[in-house]
Amino acid sequence: MFQDFKLVDDRPVVIQVKEYIQRLIIKGALQGDQKLPSTREMSGLLKVSRNTVIAAYEGLEEGGFAYAVPGKGSYVSALAGYLAEDSAEAEDSAGWQFDWRARMNDYAVSAVELDIMKPGIRAPKETISFTSIAPDEHLFDLGDVRRAFLDRMAIEGQVLLNYGYAKGYKPLIDYLMRYMENKGVDISGKDMLITSGFTEGFDIVLSALRPASRRGAAICENPTHHTAIKNLHLQGYQITGIPMERDGIDVEELERVLQQKSRTFDLAYLTPSYHNPTGIVMSPAKRSAVMKLMTRYGIPVIEDGFNEELRYSGAHIAPLIATAGQGNGVIYIGSFSKVLFPGLRVGWVLADRELIGYLESIKRARSIHTSTIDQSILYQYLLNGNFDKYVRKARAEYKRKYELTKACCEAYLPQAELSGDGGLHLFLTFPTGVNTRQLLDACNAQGVIFTPGDRFFIHEGEGTNTLRLGFSRVADENIKRGIRIIGEQARSFLRT
Amino acid sequence: MFQDFKLVDDRPVVIQVKEYIQRLIIKGALQGDQKLPSTREMSGLLKVSRNTVIAAYEGLEEGGFAYAVPGKGSYVSALAGYLAEDSAEAEDSAGWQFDWRARMNDYAVSAVELDIMKPGIRAPKETISFTSIAPDEHLFDLGDVRRAFLDRMAIEGQVLLNYGYAKGYKPLIDYLMRYMENKGVDISGKDMLITSGFTEGFDIVLSALRPASRRGAAICENPTHHTAIKNLHLQGYQITGIPMERDGIDVEELERVLQQKSRTFDLAYLTPSYHNPTGIVMSPAKRSAVMKLMTRYGIPVIEDGFNEELRYSGAHIAPLIATAGQGNGVIYIGSFSKVLFPGLRVGWVLADRELIGYLESIKRARSIHTSTIDQSILYQYLLNGNFDKYVRKARAEYKRKYELTKACCEAYLPQAELSGDGGLHLFLTFPTGVNTRQLLDACNAQGVIFTPGDRFFIHEGEGTNTLRLGFSRVADENIKRGIRIIGEQARSFLRT
Repeated sequence: MFQDFKLVDDRPVVIQVKEYIQRLIIKGALQGDQKLPSTREMSGLLKVSRNTVIAAYEGLEEGGFAYAVPGKGSYVSALAGYLAEDSAEAEDSAGWQFDWRARMNDYAVSAVELDIMKPGIRAPKETISFTSIAPDEHLFDLGDVRRAFLDRMAIEGQVLLNYGYAKGYKPLIDYLMRYMENKGVDISGKDMLITSGFTEGFDIVLSALRPASRRGAAICENPTHHTAIKNLHLQGYQITGIPMERDGIDVEELERVLQQKSRTFDLAYLTPSYHNPTGIVMSPAKRSAVMKLMTRYGIPVIEDGFNEELRYSGAHIAPLIATAGQGNGVIYIGSFSKVLFPGLRVGWVLADRELIGYLESIKRARSIHTSTIDQSILYQYLLNGNFDKYVRKARAEYKRKYELTKACCEAYLPQAELSGDGGLHLFLTFPTGVNTRQLLDACNAQGVIFTPGDRFFIHEGEGTNTLRLGFSRVADENIKRGIRIIGEQARSFLRT
Repeated sequence: MFQDFKLVDDRPVVIQVKEYIQRLIIKGALQGDQKLPSTREMSGLLKVSRNTVIAAYEGLEEGGFAYAVPGKGSYVSALAGYLAEDSAEAEDSAGWQFDWRARMNDYAVSAVELDIMKPGIRAPKETISFTSIAPDEHLFDLGDVRRAFLDRMAIEGQVLLNYGYAKGYKPLIDYLMRYMENKGVDISGKDMLITSGFTEGFDIVLSALRPASRRGAAICENPTHHTAIKNLHLQGYQITGIPMERDGIDVEELERVLQQKSRTFDLAYLTPSYHNPTGIVMSPAKRSAVMKLMTRYGIPVIEDGFNEELRYSGAHIAPLIATAGQGNGVIYIGSFSKVLFPGLRVGWVLADRELIGYLESIKRARSIHTSTIDQSILYQYLLNGNFDKYVRKARAEYKRKYELTKACCEAYLPQAELSGDGGLHLFLTFPTGVNTRQLLDACNAQGVIFTPGDRFFIHEGEGTNTLRLGFSRVADENIKRGIRIIGEQARSFLRT
């Protein structure tokens, strides 16, 4: 015994010795009330210092795996329940197999079916991938993030590590309320809930709303963010998609749909700025028109503040919630995920104060509260003025890449219609007949992948001639090479 | 204009100047195409350096709030949608008021009704409060947490800040799988999902299971963790409570309930170690007996690993999932929240691999993934061997407080039956007739509060003579003084 002990580099030796012996006890190789080798002996057997063994034995005693007999040495505790072989029911237990698949409800089954990440393309490392719209981590200013963490820990480390509040970290809420006020939002009568990113905020909002009939009815831009489509479906909503035009949602079609007497809608989900996947910014005139319609038909709007900060040209445009003034019909969900750090899971819901009260209780029931460390790092980072500095740098870099990608598309993919006014991706629409899933297969064989656009459309069979190109994490030369390859493959599709 | 500018201390001056002017633009005090004062003038007006104004103007231009005319100066951009007053629909919008309460579904309404934190007692600062079972933050080793963060950031900071995986941070999963193996768990055929604490894990598991009939049926210890009761109710479960005995759940009563032909149960939720609120550890014999019954009746067990590490005496006892051997019927949910840092929202679900696959997709739909920063700090903290060191310190301190609290209860509250074998609280049962809500009112008037025990019971009217005393965050002298006061008040209740 004790021959198979092997030290690894990256963990304290005492813990490695303790866990090694503990495992022998649990496996039954060392039995209850058996005397352990003396610390001197064990030190020789494991080739570690005697002090290490003394500390490891103490650890075992504290953990209840051993006990000391004064003057005699350390003995193994008689453990209960650790060895299935010991107990009469061992065979029953080993045979206790559930068919979990049969016990999954529709929600769980749909969650897997609608989960596009699971069967995601596993591409070899050298593949040129336009699938990601996550930020380029090389832009991250790690030093500033470290400093934000250390600053905040110095101020209130003990508070950060203990329980926080379901509603969120107060200094961050105050900061973001002012931030939204600076975007022109009238915050009177409104309040904020901090969530683990946009997705949790959206899911909590959906889970609180009572649809007018058994199945909810939602209006969305078509195409739209596939996570939104997924979560609306998971919550039982039927979705009516309104086509996109060059300057945002087709307002005439929207009005036509709303006028149908036979239908009522429970909510609209809209992404007015740098819309995912088309990258289109809704024009001020359309924003006005949309808000008028929503007001007239009494339909609450969930506004996705996605990428609002990644504007590359033109003047600022107010979010819909600012346009609504004191009205309480817009639920704004914001996040810095794409602009700053997706790893910090922080988003926010800004909405009517009474509504936030309900959402707060749901948040508490679901996950108690959002990571205080994440919230406080974000807060201090913002407070230190790093955000402005970082966004300036990131915007310059992404703008450059955006223009490069656009130029490459115009050069190599003249047959495709291009959209995207900012953000981290462009959207391409090919002549009907070009199936982008087949195009993807052909490109993949050439070492280039992208996101086929159909997954952003409400109904099966729509958008089969579209694709999304995320450029944020692709090197310049690969942007050129990748788009050239897509162009070559697309031409052969157009010929056939 | 520009007279009301006031600098605050804790933010970069450039940002304060930029936001000040931006707000004037949004409010309409500065109008579109109006020329801004020259940087020299503005520097004098705001009493900041000219370089500051130059940088602030640049920031406004980048943000689309101003534009530069070469040789002439900076001008205000004409913003769209920012002023509700500007637009024709302003009055409609202001009048656009939803009655959100009327749009909340049963789930949202119940979440508020069952939310005991919201109407929680707001006690003055000098009150002696036994309501918390959160750890004492003075024990936190902030230096080690800081080091864990810096170590991990140095190794892979860019990875930590970008998107992670729904399943969790791989190094942490590997670590925790080994950790659970060291508790005797057979991990073959099992897998792990990292969640934002126990609560999210529990909620995700419940939301995946398909009950045999329309309303699910669950078995719990009675009393039990009130968050579990809340979330079971929110998911539509009817709960059958099995009374607690000194060594855990009443097995005879459990068997009697299971034998009823008319009823089937979808799951059991059990906390075998340091049960909340009674603090009782289920005996090895009962663990065997319970697992036999669950196997015989085919009822999956959700095991709450709550406080397993806060053992103050006796040998280690294996969790139920270890007792189950290769069986896949136990879903173990663990968390270091109470032992380590609740602020790090990290828990884990260890269960059958196929089941984890479903839960992973639900997790992705709900919040994409758990904070990578939290997960990586926890991982590095564990890897550095800080956990053992910290638990040793915390356990010594809590054990001392536990014994002090116990001694005080025995001295001042001889009329109450005491339970609690470890953890951060004790549970008291008074003779029937002592209503602990009334007792709480009386004690509150004397500056002492605790948690009335009835909220941990399944049915209204149960446990009205019980209370929970959380001692982890109460100073020694206050433990003595507080319990003496509870004793005095209780005596007057017993007399009447």
